[in-house]
Amino acid sequence: TSNKSLLILPGDGIGPEAMAEVRRIVGWMEENRAVAFDVDEDLVGGASIDEHGIPITDAVVEKAQNVDAVLLGAVGGPKWDDLDFSIKPERGLLRLRKDLQLFANLRPAVCFDALVDASSLKPELVSGLDIMIVRELTGGVYFGEPRGIEDLGNGVRRGINTQVYTTPEIHRVARVAFELAKKRGNRVCSSEKANVMESGVLWREEVTHIQQTEFPDVELSHMYADNAAMQLVRAPKQFDVIVTDNLFGDILSDCAAMLTGSLGMLPSASLGDVDETGRRKALYEPVHGSAPDISGQNLANPIATILSYAMALRYSFDMGDEADLVEGAVEKVLASGVRTGDIMATGMTQVSTTEMGDAILKEL
Amino acid sequence: TSNKSLLILPGDGIGPEAMAEVRRIVGWMEENRAVAFDVDEDLVGGASIDEHGIPITDAVVEKAQNVDAVLLGAVGGPKWDDLDFSIKPERGLLRLRKDLQLFANLRPAVCFDALVDASSLKPELVSGLDIMIVRELTGGVYFGEPRGIEDLGNGVRRGINTQVYTTPEIHRVARVAFELAKKRGNRVCSSEKANVMESGVLWREEVTHIQQTEFPDVELSHMYADNAAMQLVRAPKQFDVIVTDNLFGDILSDCAAMLTGSLGMLPSASLGDVDETGRRKALYEPVHGSAPDISGQNLANPIATILSYAMALRYSFDMGDEADLVEGAVEKVLASGVRTGDIMATGMTQVSTTEMGDAILKEL
Ligand SMILES: CC(C)[C@H](C(=O)O)[C@@H](O)C(=O)O
Ligand SMILES: CC(C)[C@H](C(=O)O)[C@@H](O)C(=O)O
Repeated sequence: TSNKSLLILPGDGIGPEAMAEVRRIVGWMEENRAVAFDVDEDLVGGASIDEHGIPITDAVVEKAQNVDAVLLGAVGGPKWDDLDFSIKPERGLLRLRKDLQLFANLRPAVCFDALVDASSLKPELVSGLDIMIVRELTGGVYFGEPRGIEDLGNGVRRGINTQVYTTPEIHRVARVAFELAKKRGNRVCSSEKANVMESGVLWREEVTHIQQTEFPDVELSHMYADNAAMQLVRAPKQFDVIVTDNLFGDILSDCAAMLTGSLGMLPSASLGDVDETGRRKALYEPVHGSAPDISGQNLANPIATILSYAMALRYSFDMGDEADLVEGAVEKVLASGVRTGDIMATGMTQVSTTEMGDAILKEL
Repeated sequence: TSNKSLLILPGDGIGPEAMAEVRRIVGWMEENRAVAFDVDEDLVGGASIDEHGIPITDAVVEKAQNVDAVLLGAVGGPKWDDLDFSIKPERGLLRLRKDLQLFANLRPAVCFDALVDASSLKPELVSGLDIMIVRELTGGVYFGEPRGIEDLGNGVRRGINTQVYTTPEIHRVARVAFELAKKRGNRVCSSEKANVMESGVLWREEVTHIQQTEFPDVELSHMYADNAAMQLVRAPKQFDVIVTDNLFGDILSDCAAMLTGSLGMLPSASLGDVDETGRRKALYEPVHGSAPDISGQNLANPIATILSYAMALRYSFDMGDEADLVEGAVEKVLASGVRTGDIMATGMTQVSTTEMGDAILKEL
């Protein structure tokens, strides 16, 4: 592989449509910025189930291990809803996260100026909103053992999952959050349920420990996860960086993303440790899901996937200028009033997925 | 004890202030409706810690076991934040829930007409909102074993909690949700993370089983908890009854409560099974917490606690008429423009806790 290797996994639903627009932008980069990407494409999720019977193959995981960045569309859909838990589309994504040890999931919840009115919240509460949620992604109840469904006899069953965190797992994701805060508003809010769960007590103690010993200049606060959900709805701008575990992060980041009104616009990055070769394993994907209800109809908003590619340019390929170009083009297109259906408003021009791609390429 | 026994546990923070207003209304009932309550009052939470060193005594639990209804204010505050997990104020509330087997927590998320503008959401999204969240309250990760923090040596520790549900636990709370739905919009949405957790798979299967075998006429849908958080923010009126587990219910019900803008107004009921004597164990409490920042200043909104008492009248004392009276008085007071600080808006009259009590008594 070259030193600019990218694995594209379009996945299911609107994933492939959105990714087609990204490929056009990758093409533009090669032509106009003289950067050659070594791009490979493969299957994940339902698409992989249909072809191979499993949501990701060892070969694809192997490829993902050896590229500079993975770009993922979305996984899942009603077609695969009745499959057994162990081979559902989601397991493909979960295996990628776990095998690549992508422990830090960065989910910005940003309200785009042009989209303030698309939020269900009052404009003054979300205009200018810029939160970064750092979600632990390879631990907690998502992967803890023991897990499963036991038969206790007499028709009674018991379902079990285990929430588990060790100090090193907490430390590494806390460091990512504090590092990010230093480049932003210098404030971290850590969220758990330490009033109910011992794993939350440990989380709180260890995040505090990292702050005190390594980041004394970053402000740290703690908030129970139920209160964090309330505060996000009440006054989201009070937050800068939020760091939390896998399950709370799943819920809080979706809640935060939705209240920006810009869900179809939000990218995310999942990062691992830096390896011997100086490379940080990384997967980029939109915050939104596979939206099966609108897939295949050229209706999807490709911007979150395009901005995920921009994030890859910035963080995995050290191409900040090119990332700026893409992000700037997206902003100009929005400012010009061009909108896909999900962010449509009166007075704007509604366009299809491919037309949105056209508009962004034109701005580039 | 008489057949109208009530145990009042004011607890911490604004709990005692709010409860003082309830006691005035209890007095009014005795004088004007000729109903004698056998009212006892005792300590829970930090108040109990200060007196007895533990957040609830066996004697208080024993009392709670033997009354028709428990009315609780709120527990917790910064004063007790550094106490060991096992004796924190919250453990008093958790022990009450567990020992009384109050497995079904009913949390209405209702937007009061007079308060539509207090919501952070746009008025059209919340006006008329009326959701009932049924949260499982005695199982799941709140009580699952094993739990705790282990020392693995070399300064490494591991925090563990266990999410566990059995079929009977799921069945009984599902039945409460379906029964409630029959008296409302006839729709139940069940929420879990069945795409990630086996306990969620069991939850989904067993809720479906109860619907198919016992409530075929009630509409049942399923929604992952992260999506439920998003949908609550995006379009809360799509929901009628939501049934979910202890932890998801904690977060989703707080999120839903906050988006009504009526947090200081929302009561809740925690119900157990009907026992041999025909009595259903029950605890009523406001959805809001102890609000230590405003406690002791005669600023708190007592309405959620007063409406919790009204819920007790309705569900534990079979006094629907009297419950109507109290609820009607609250609505009239709101319509007249009287407001505590938390729900204050321009053009309204701001009052203290006791003045709000005065106004409600006057309407009665
Ligand atoms: C698809 C699902 C397994 C996943 C998760 O729960 O992590 C998704 O909700 C997400 O947030 O990326
Ligand atoms: C105080 C705390 C233990 C409690 C909970 O987590 O259940 C509270 O948040 C609630 O929702 O009643």
